[in-house]
Amino acid sequence: MSASPIYLGVVGVGGVGTAFLSQLARLPNAPKLVLLARSSQTLLAPTPAYSPAIPAADWATAAAAPSLNKAGALSAEEIATYLASAPGRAILVDNTSDINLARQYPTFLKKGVSIVTPNKKGFSDDLSLWKDIFASAAEGKALVYHESTVGAGLPVLSTLKDLVATGDEVTRIEGVFSGTLSFLFNTFAPASGSSSAQWSAVVAQAKELGYTEPDPRDDLNGMDVARKLTILARLAGLEISRPDSFPIESLIPAELASLPSSADGITQFMNRLPDFDAEMATVKATAEKQGKVVRYVGSIDVAAKAVKVGLQYFDKDTAIAGLKGSDNIISFYTKRYGANPLIVQGAGAGGDVTAMGVSADLLKVVERLR
Amino acid sequence: MSASPIYLGVVGVGGVGTAFLSQLARLPNAPKLVLLARSSQTLLAPTPAYSPAIPAADWATAAAAPSLNKAGALSAEEIATYLASAPGRAILVDNTSDINLARQYPTFLKKGVSIVTPNKKGFSDDLSLWKDIFASAAEGKALVYHESTVGAGLPVLSTLKDLVATGDEVTRIEGVFSGTLSFLFNTFAPASGSSSAQWSAVVAQAKELGYTEPDPRDDLNGMDVARKLTILARLAGLEISRPDSFPIESLIPAELASLPSSADGITQFMNRLPDFDAEMATVKATAEKQGKVVRYVGSIDVAAKAVKVGLQYFDKDTAIAGLKGSDNIISFYTKRYGANPLIVQGAGAGGDVTAMGVSADLLKVVERLR
Repeated sequence: MSASPIYLGVVGVGGVGTAFLSQLARLPNAPKLVLLARSSQTLLAPTPAYSPAIPAADWATAAAAPSLNKAGALSAEEIATYLASAPGRAILVDNTSDINLARQYPTFLKKGVSIVTPNKKGFSDDLSLWKDIFASAAEGKALVYHESTVGAGLPVLSTLKDLVATGDEVTRIEGVFSGTLSFLFNTFAPASGSSSAQWSAVVAQAKELGYTEPDPRDDLNGMDVARKLTILARLAGLEISRPDSFPIESLIPAELASLPSSADGITQFMNRLPDFDAEMATVKATAEKQGKVVRYVGSIDVAAKAVKVGLQYFDKDTAIAGLKGSDNIISFYTKRYGANPLIVQGAGAGGDVTAMGVSADLLKVVERLR
Repeated sequence: MSASPIYLGVVGVGGVGTAFLSQLARLPNAPKLVLLARSSQTLLAPTPAYSPAIPAADWATAAAAPSLNKAGALSAEEIATYLASAPGRAILVDNTSDINLARQYPTFLKKGVSIVTPNKKGFSDDLSLWKDIFASAAEGKALVYHESTVGAGLPVLSTLKDLVATGDEVTRIEGVFSGTLSFLFNTFAPASGSSSAQWSAVVAQAKELGYTEPDPRDDLNGMDVARKLTILARLAGLEISRPDSFPIESLIPAELASLPSSADGITQFMNRLPDFDAEMATVKATAEKQGKVVRYVGSIDVAAKAVKVGLQYFDKDTAIAGLKGSDNIISFYTKRYGANPLIVQGAGAGGDVTAMGVSADLLKVVERLR
């Protein structure tokens, strides 16, 4: 509750990182930005005063300011030591998707540096890393907030945590967790109206619009969804050993799975994808015959400890079927909420909304550390 | 972050209050319950040690324990003084719907006692009280959490606060905010299938099921929805002077508005309501002719500073039209979220889910005070 200064280190200046820095510049009571690291460069407020701070608004030009220190890439250990030595509590915001940095979270946390991040890698890898992260946070009296690892800025993890912490019994979690796959299926098989577009054409369109990863197979293999399910299932109390320790239906045709991940491999994949349009057309027609539409969903049956990711058919009047654009939807079925789930829905990807989740987490950590 | 004890006073043991106490008994790191007040009785941990605490699990039998102090009804001032004198930070949980207690929140807050409550009265009354509450909280370095004043345990206020605090521009908020009115219209004019039930029969059924207030006019007059809209609009930055300072469409026929609020008046109201079934049937048929359904909604147009509560027609494939049971739905339209709103949906009334919002708030206040 006191107004002691809090020191902030930020790693990553990609889409989310840039959006975050522009939000940070306008946050009330923002902590002091004293470290900003990109792939090969690090900008630092000079020790021992950790002052002047880096201006979040125009960090790019600040790199030229003589009052700040510049260094090459620092190791996670060096960043942790720098932040932990600040004359007050410190927070690391990791805006990368780097598993190696995530593996070092325990180093930061044990030194008392809190973590705020949209990087889902660390929370969805080996269960041992998950346990290490939270044990280290307890040891260092540091906090870990990672709302944006699932559903971007949507209140998904905070809602699940509140349900669990107040003693509700979460029985099932189900939803569309990938903005990319949401767009693909909402376009390919809309619940109202109809579409004659072939599957490969929809994938090509999404790639064109920048809705897919540079290699669309990184969306189609289902691993992004599986990692999000891993995080939710662990928060619901299930000990998921790995993000691939449950059934994941890949939308990459088996015949194309071995194409290289090079630019040439991506081109080959896109060129050969039309050969498999008939398969997806059959899936769509089968759903249609039942008056349903096909969607790519993840689900967690908590009692049965069953997690799965893949295609499923839904009645056209359900919320999942009626999803628009690249929206996510997450339904929590619980004992208290009864037959009708608690539902959260909206954009689940994009720099601004992902950064919003990071900024909101940061404000909560600052409130708790002050 | 330290583990200093926190002291808790609870007022109200009705439906929400009872559910809250049973959740409190199972909360991890719960604060010490040192005061429990009901209409005419108060149970207190003896001063100056504020120990032993009152067992939340079986508070009813604890009233007989010789180790606790019993008193009659205490004034808000006395309760505030008792809590503020505890040897640590203190929190008042107000589980009543009493405007008089709410008017005393500034007294508690100035003394450093934080407030957690589902009581919407204080936050939706005169704007001067709203301002006094938050100024007093700042003065006393105390916290105010009131998630359950809108949408019960659904993450509505926390989501709106995060949007605003991180710099998003909220343009419009729209939704169904009353579980009672949700049930009435979902039953009277379902989006899928059809119903031949008369309006008065649906109201009688809802009253029978306990879904309405004892006097259904307390739901039908729209004031409950207007109070929730007042709170949301204020959090979105609008200076709403009073909960009746904007258009509210009452569903009480003008001819029945002057019936007394006595038991006899309620009976007369229910007996004469069928005389107005034709009016509601016309509303329903008019919507139907446009392929729509009628719903009772509240909306806030932030830019136009326009708040209104009343009947509106919706396409049958919209989320509002498809609502089930007595669910609430709240849509936030913002600059960052673009064309598709951020939506929160689920049960918005009931002792357990309302108490869940209170318990979750309490945990957050405890985390910040420790």
